[in-house]
Amino acid sequence: MVGKEASIKGGILMAEEKCERNAVCDTCNQTNSCSQQEKEAHAQERLKSKLSNIKHRIMVMSGKGGVGKSTVSTNLAVALSQDGFIVGLLDADIHGPNIPKMLGIESRHVEGSENGMTPIEVFPNLKVISMAFFIGDRDNPVVWRGPLKHNAISQFLGEVEWGNLDFLFVDLPPGTGDEPLSVAHLIKNVDGAVIVTTPQDVALLDSRKAVTFSRMLSIPVMGIVENMSGLNCPHCHKEIPLFKIGGGEKAAQDMKVPFLGRIPIDPEMVTDCDRGMPFVTAHPNSEAAQAFKKIANRCKEYIEFNEGGKKMETEEFPYHFRKQEVKR
Amino acid sequence: MVGKEASIKGGILMAEEKCERNAVCDTCNQTNSCSQQEKEAHAQERLKSKLSNIKHRIMVMSGKGGVGKSTVSTNLAVALSQDGFIVGLLDADIHGPNIPKMLGIESRHVEGSENGMTPIEVFPNLKVISMAFFIGDRDNPVVWRGPLKHNAISQFLGEVEWGNLDFLFVDLPPGTGDEPLSVAHLIKNVDGAVIVTTPQDVALLDSRKAVTFSRMLSIPVMGIVENMSGLNCPHCHKEIPLFKIGGGEKAAQDMKVPFLGRIPIDPEMVTDCDRGMPFVTAHPNSEAAQAFKKIANRCKEYIEFNEGGKKMETEEFPYHFRKQEVKR
Repeated sequence: MVGKEASIKGGILMAEEKCERNAVCDTCNQTNSCSQQEKEAHAQERLKSKLSNIKHRIMVMSGKGGVGKSTVSTNLAVALSQDGFIVGLLDADIHGPNIPKMLGIESRHVEGSENGMTPIEVFPNLKVISMAFFIGDRDNPVVWRGPLKHNAISQFLGEVEWGNLDFLFVDLPPGTGDEPLSVAHLIKNVDGAVIVTTPQDVALLDSRKAVTFSRMLSIPVMGIVENMSGLNCPHCHKEIPLFKIGGGEKAAQDMKVPFLGRIPIDPEMVTDCDRGMPFVTAHPNSEAAQAFKKIANRCKEYIEFNEGGKKMETEEFPYHFRKQEVKR
Repeated sequence: MVGKEASIKGGILMAEEKCERNAVCDTCNQTNSCSQQEKEAHAQERLKSKLSNIKHRIMVMSGKGGVGKSTVSTNLAVALSQDGFIVGLLDADIHGPNIPKMLGIESRHVEGSENGMTPIEVFPNLKVISMAFFIGDRDNPVVWRGPLKHNAISQFLGEVEWGNLDFLFVDLPPGTGDEPLSVAHLIKNVDGAVIVTTPQDVALLDSRKAVTFSRMLSIPVMGIVENMSGLNCPHCHKEIPLFKIGGGEKAAQDMKVPFLGRIPIDPEMVTDCDRGMPFVTAHPNSEAAQAFKKIANRCKEYIEFNEGGKKMETEEFPYHFRKQEVKR
């Protein structure tokens, strides 16, 4: 990438220098004339430029694995795209990228242009990028340590042609390690974190850690979602509190963050995931789909509150965001 | 640590040099007289010496989170310790260390001597080490990237006074990233990997990756455990195939690895986990506890097969290990 605005001072290129071309360095025909430091500056510039087209960035995280984070991300993204928003979904789980499977797009391939990778369109206003699109054989694991994962996430943000987005959901792997750190570091101003948990104690223990983690990185916690909250027997219709009920709400109260809602277990959800149908589309009237839609509305309210709220705290804003201490 | 056997050649210390003291370098009163390189050599030596007292090392892993890996590790370790074996359980999940909670020992503290850390005893013949013992406030996340996690796992192996063990179970976090790589790299000759999955497709997809991962690192796959396999309604007692049934067995057949068994969902298991009671102790006659015991027996058979099997392939060994291609 050439056409530097900045001058070379004492042989060291300025990190702020701009490149007039939009191409990714790897595909730029003038790549040989740039130093590694210049290329890094271009990558930073590209990241900044790509992110400037994304209105709101939401991280979906959990302390513990298998709490349904990807299911929540997918259904929130679909629900908001059905409401007319332009939504991007970044699957940041490098080792277990399951979102493409859940949306029935796992056999699709990402195409590249000189400006970067084109994300996969599920609907015209829902675009997805995931490591799954880059693994040839689905049985092949991605055996990468932290730095390589950081690079991949960096490319998913800076070298994907997201275009203009209303929302970008970043679905993170469980824990508080490399991937969430990379996302927080790269995006810088994340609008908020949705923390998914199940109601049993071992999951709650970890979700509390996720709340503290977000606070440490100055990411506002949008709230806690209690997933897998109770099950109705499909035979006798009586309630089975499989992973208990109410723990997520209690954790939200204890940690003084909003409670976003409760999603019951629905055996159809597992089947829908496996056949690549988002649950909110396949069973729009079910209790769980309604719960997803309510949580999607909470996300919208949160954004509205955050945009106007700080200036007008006395006006009528949803109580559940009022109480929150928004740190930046 | 002093008393070097090896000589200093051209100013570079030999990595094989031995230290006559058993103390951990940090607590050694002669630590100042050793270089960083010497200390690394001592750490290697300590690791080798500690591992030489452990007869069999088993990794418990999964591709996907939340499939019940820690529950399986805990119950297998308890079942084998009840059979009279001396068992160690290393919780290698640095971000979500839940094993102490499941065994009701989360408020215990690890004590140190000059020879290293003393693991927590659950029973006289069951010892546990976990990051949870080192976190003051339970809400605090461990925000570490890969290299720090590698160091922690290295200390859990080389600086814990495990003593003589028949089995060491290493419970890994989900995925195929830093932690499993570190364990495989540090232990070197892992006896085998137990891969835990649930029967739904998204989990199976990831468990197949875990099988390939083990093969890439030349770790024999002991087999696949299908957890959360069906649920009987506690009210009408009819079966609810919540996460479907049979997927784990099919994955094992496809990937040509042994199938170790199926564990049904038992709502009591969640309660037991949360109150810190191992399920095999609390409900020894339940279907799920029987399933755990069968899998523990399979582990014993596997070890016996592996010890004698390669020399005597014609003799009567369990069919389910015969079929497996054991790569080293």
